[in-house]
Amino acid sequence: MDTMGRHVIAELWECNIDKLNDMGLIEKIFVNAALKAGAEIREVAFHKFAPYGVSGVVIISESHLTIHSFPEHGYASIDVYTCGDVIDPNVAAEYIAESLESNRSEKVEVPRGMGPVEVSQFKAL
Amino acid sequence: MDTMGRHVIAELWECNIDKLNDMGLIEKIFVNAALKAGAEIREVAFHKFAPYGVSGVVIISESHLTIHSFPEHGYASIDVYTCGDVIDPNVAAEYIAESLESNRSEKVEVPRGMGPVEVSQFKAL
Repeated sequence: MDTMGRHVIAELWECNIDKLNDMGLIEKIFVNAALKAGAEIREVAFHKFAPYGVSGVVIISESHLTIHSFPEHGYASIDVYTCGDVIDPNVAAEYIAESLESNRSEKVEVPRGMGPVEVSQFKAL
Repeated sequence: MDTMGRHVIAELWECNIDKLNDMGLIEKIFVNAALKAGAEIREVAFHKFAPYGVSGVVIISESHLTIHSFPEHGYASIDVYTCGDVIDPNVAAEYIAESLESNRSEKVEVPRGMGPVEVSQFKAL
């Protein structure tokens, strides 16, 4: 497999606080996000923190999706990394942002597997 | 918990090919990397691809470590993301680079959870 990949780093602010603390829902959103982007799911691991917050990952054949949620701040930090040029990680990132009802979000796309790269600045998701 | 985090994205080239294809070893390296950095491990999920390659994640209380290895290219793509300012993600990233015997590596550190940010360019690990 070619090393080339696309890694979307997204900062989701002003999300729905209840959703950010619902591990079952977040896991479902992430599985759906991977499938919508056309990825093949390999492993799913989520963790609920006390009193707030969820961390989790979906490992796909094409790399991974991760989240760390901070319900008390209405914030979720997400990454969608896909290898190859068939799957668009932005499809998954946008689905997640909509599903968590984020009202303000920024993202940056980092090229991976191609040596030192120019990294652009964050922009609205 | 504060949303502030540090996310090290590292590209490891010219690694030991046999190590890049050894899932058990990579899992051990990642668990050790998390512990060396002082992180608290919550979930561990790794996957071996046929014929080559390993993907995996260690979810820590402070966020995550991930890897996607491409033994046929001597390349591993790693991320070490730690929330807060107590743990230094570079400690884990450097340990992983050494353990995989990478001869050429680049990294960039992306601040997370602080809104749109200046992202610097990749530099040697």
